[in-house]
Amino acid sequence: MKELQVSLGERSYPIFIGRDLLGAGAPAWQSFVRGHQACIVSNDRVAPLYLDRVRAGLGDKQLAEVILPDGESHKTLEVASRVFDTLLEKNHNRSTTLIALGGGVVGDMCGFAAACYQRGVAFVQLPTTLLAMVDSSVGGKTGVNHPLGKNMIGAFHQPACVLADLSLLDTLPRREYAAGVAEVIKYGLICDAPFFEWLENNVDALMARDGDVLAEAVYRSCVNKAKVVAEDEREGGRRAILNLGHTFGHAIETAEGYGSWLHGEAVAAGMSLALALSVELGWLDESIWKRADVLMQRAGLPLVPPPSMNVDQFLQLMGRDKKVIDGRLRLVLLEGLGQAVVSDRASVEQISKVLISAGITA
Amino acid sequence: MKELQVSLGERSYPIFIGRDLLGAGAPAWQSFVRGHQACIVSNDRVAPLYLDRVRAGLGDKQLAEVILPDGESHKTLEVASRVFDTLLEKNHNRSTTLIALGGGVVGDMCGFAAACYQRGVAFVQLPTTLLAMVDSSVGGKTGVNHPLGKNMIGAFHQPACVLADLSLLDTLPRREYAAGVAEVIKYGLICDAPFFEWLENNVDALMARDGDVLAEAVYRSCVNKAKVVAEDEREGGRRAILNLGHTFGHAIETAEGYGSWLHGEAVAAGMSLALALSVELGWLDESIWKRADVLMQRAGLPLVPPPSMNVDQFLQLMGRDKKVIDGRLRLVLLEGLGQAVVSDRASVEQISKVLISAGITA
Repeated sequence: MKELQVSLGERSYPIFIGRDLLGAGAPAWQSFVRGHQACIVSNDRVAPLYLDRVRAGLGDKQLAEVILPDGESHKTLEVASRVFDTLLEKNHNRSTTLIALGGGVVGDMCGFAAACYQRGVAFVQLPTTLLAMVDSSVGGKTGVNHPLGKNMIGAFHQPACVLADLSLLDTLPRREYAAGVAEVIKYGLICDAPFFEWLENNVDALMARDGDVLAEAVYRSCVNKAKVVAEDEREGGRRAILNLGHTFGHAIETAEGYGSWLHGEAVAAGMSLALALSVELGWLDESIWKRADVLMQRAGLPLVPPPSMNVDQFLQLMGRDKKVIDGRLRLVLLEGLGQAVVSDRASVEQISKVLISAGITA
Repeated sequence: MKELQVSLGERSYPIFIGRDLLGAGAPAWQSFVRGHQACIVSNDRVAPLYLDRVRAGLGDKQLAEVILPDGESHKTLEVASRVFDTLLEKNHNRSTTLIALGGGVVGDMCGFAAACYQRGVAFVQLPTTLLAMVDSSVGGKTGVNHPLGKNMIGAFHQPACVLADLSLLDTLPRREYAAGVAEVIKYGLICDAPFFEWLENNVDALMARDGDVLAEAVYRSCVNKAKVVAEDEREGGRRAILNLGHTFGHAIETAEGYGSWLHGEAVAAGMSLALALSVELGWLDESIWKRADVLMQRAGLPLVPPPSMNVDQFLQLMGRDKKVIDGRLRLVLLEGLGQAVVSDRASVEQISKVLISAGITA
């Protein structure tokens, strides 16, 4: 088992990475459930697979369970409220610990419920998808979607620990696994050129879920994420580089209805657009963009947005993203491999040109 | 105009207290609206009285407005969501500032919306009731009620500033004014014996809304609140003394349905019960309890809970309050005038005895 630390002063916490870490025999995470009450939040796809193991791991705690419907379309305030209902019906107090057992949607909703229940209780992240392990479970961003925008209602609330049990990925559908690889590739692009090159050499083994390669990919992703988060917990500045491709990606997700494109797929197409825009601005060598496209293609990821969208719709949806400050669209762009910057320098015309080149209707 | 500071490091903020501070001529608070967008959150009783003045004070900002229905019964997640709807419809970004114009309900809901919108935006408190000026607008507690408990969903989110414009109290109904005085008296009881004695000498002038006495009462209340909050922002310990009477009071409010008893009225009856319990435990001289009762009576406040409640119901509702840690009921009690402590030493039998003495059915 590997372990690393997210360094945030009194809110610091460990990430554990390894196989078969979930059950009763593995004490790494149980010690972070401090009170005598705990509430497992999961979804109807994950719970039948792993809920028993987590229950066993919690021994004699007073347990509550909330099983949410699976999928991004259910990541709403109304669905998150069911966690509050259960906690109150079971008389859970401020010393309870919430346990997020699932992918990014479960983690975001459970984390948000933990942030708001009685103005904040502890929670533990037990991610069950690759995307959640390398990205969403680390860093304390929690929240739900609004019909007018993704993650528009939320809180920064750090978990007590994150446990990435890689054996859970054995059953993850290939499409979801690939969506997680999109975020892995992101770290190489934004801040870790050697990792990008390592991925170019190891992507086939990674897609074959080779144990050592997978463990290394998750570990290096978490190291990068932890480093960026430690520098800027509440995204006042540098943390925004983690959103490479996300403003484009959120527009795709919103246009298509949450859930039809997976988040990681939308981010992949969005990263290709962000790199194309960086090339258009003259900041990035075209060969880097092409290498990224090849790598994402080898991971089975989409490179272009859905052709049903048009430029005006795309721009309008991008404008609703959180990365807008006083009317200027702020985007994450690359000045080189591993060198992301946040900039509002791209004009509407330049963005439109890149969208049209990617097949979007003018 | 008086000014004092709530000292919370990078989250520190000023409280301004005076008359005629709201409009265009008074620049104290406008400088805390930093971006070019602002959203006024108010209710349908306050807005007709003061919304124009606040609008005028905001000059050329891009303004949105959300007018909520008045009353504690509307302090729900669903109603708070209307703030999110408006902010998104009007494309407000992370640099927007929310402005709470109203009493405790508006302040709590607006503050919670500010805590959660895009994971946190700035907000300004413009309290319009005495209770909000001396208590709820200061200290960063925000939230909404759940059918199973008061303030069960919320966040700690400090305002950018608080502006207590005492001229707004000229039109406050007498019953609501008295409810605010309950929280003023609370500060004397929990941590400021000289202030309690000052109130005994000045309560008639205070109830007559004498300008100087009112200003002094608000100022000393805020000084006490700011001091306690600065010592323990997230209520890990000492801040809980601010809840004197509140666990009893919340039980009353929940039993009667939010809104039929005003919060301050329920707190007054709750404080009398807490002092009676302190006497029962042998910690407090009975004369202090009686002096507090006399002072609250002179302020027109109720001293006993509604006789329709019975002991079992009362205890069950108290058990749902946030001040329960792992099954023990933690109550704020007095060891002397101005000397509050948090204790789980009172037994169910002792609490029951005090409730029955106050007229509750066994």
